[in-house]
Amino acid sequence: MSRRSDQRAATRAAILEVAAEEFEANGYVGASLSEIAERLDLTKGALYFHYPSKGEIAKTIVQKYFEPWPPVVEEAEKHESPIKALMWLSEQVATSYRDDIHIRAAVRLVRDRASIDVELPAPFVDWISTTRSFLERAEAAGEIRAGLPLERFALLIVASWFGVQQVSQDLDERKSLLEFNSSLWELLLDGLR
Amino acid sequence: MSRRSDQRAATRAAILEVAAEEFEANGYVGASLSEIAERLDLTKGALYFHYPSKGEIAKTIVQKYFEPWPPVVEEAEKHESPIKALMWLSEQVATSYRDDIHIRAAVRLVRDRASIDVELPAPFVDWISTTRSFLERAEAAGEIRAGLPLERFALLIVASWFGVQQVSQDLDERKSLLEFNSSLWELLLDGLR
Repeated sequence: MSRRSDQRAATRAAILEVAAEEFEANGYVGASLSEIAERLDLTKGALYFHYPSKGEIAKTIVQKYFEPWPPVVEEAEKHESPIKALMWLSEQVATSYRDDIHIRAAVRLVRDRASIDVELPAPFVDWISTTRSFLERAEAAGEIRAGLPLERFALLIVASWFGVQQVSQDLDERKSLLEFNSSLWELLLDGLR
Repeated sequence: MSRRSDQRAATRAAILEVAAEEFEANGYVGASLSEIAERLDLTKGALYFHYPSKGEIAKTIVQKYFEPWPPVVEEAEKHESPIKALMWLSEQVATSYRDDIHIRAAVRLVRDRASIDVELPAPFVDWISTTRSFLERAEAAGEIRAGLPLERFALLIVASWFGVQQVSQDLDERKSLLEFNSSLWELLLDGLR
């Protein structure tokens, strides 16, 4: 890359990071482009040069940070035990939710998507189907009881996990999320075995 | 009540209902007082006469519809089985979340409370303590295993329930919430017994 394109990439990364902080703190409607430009010492024109609208910034954050889980799912598939794979996966996601400002912003943006003028992915659907496929393998491997309603239980696992991260966000800014995550598995596994 | 105070009460109720629809659809920041006034054929001055600010409307909705669960909890306490009481209670809350626009608005307002300029109650805390007290009684009655970490499991039950209502809101506007709620209990009870 030329020095100029290096610099362009650095500016775009800085915009996404500051925008992520604003989106997480104030939501989509509450976040202000002027505030983002000011915090970065950019003119609004310079900001628009990189991203033509608030919607475009939001879409970029969601595409870059909310959607690219497939490689992590593939990594999880290397575990011999499908249940351990699912637990490991939930830990990876919990760690990202706790530590990555871009991901926290993406989660909030997807939650606020009704007020956003660009199309964002529906939440939950992909995770439910991923979870279901691990449960099917767990059933085949005899790790869980045969004959459970797997589609429904996949939905409940994803929903419970989501609820736990929300409660943990509200109670202690997700500091206890990994601990809550392992307690959740303790409770759920008794229902699955 | 005089006819005038009847009319005042009716206007205030109408304001709360239309405001609830706006808050649920557009969030706190996105909801507009002008829009609310226009939908009710009121001047903004007339609206301000009843509620001096958007924050006051939000606070009233939350106080009237998010907080008054204690009588329902007392009703639940009449069940002989503490676990059945908890399941019944979760059904009552699920039904309200599905059917009552004021409650749906209150849930969203509490979620958006960081952007609201009046103090709103912290979510989850009271429900966790209510759930814990039912679990203690269930343990004493031998309905669940002895020695479970009740505080943690109370948190997980509340969190899972919250996640389930969120997923159900996103997937089918809470149409399946009661069904999901009973599946959730099916899954959880195996972990508690």
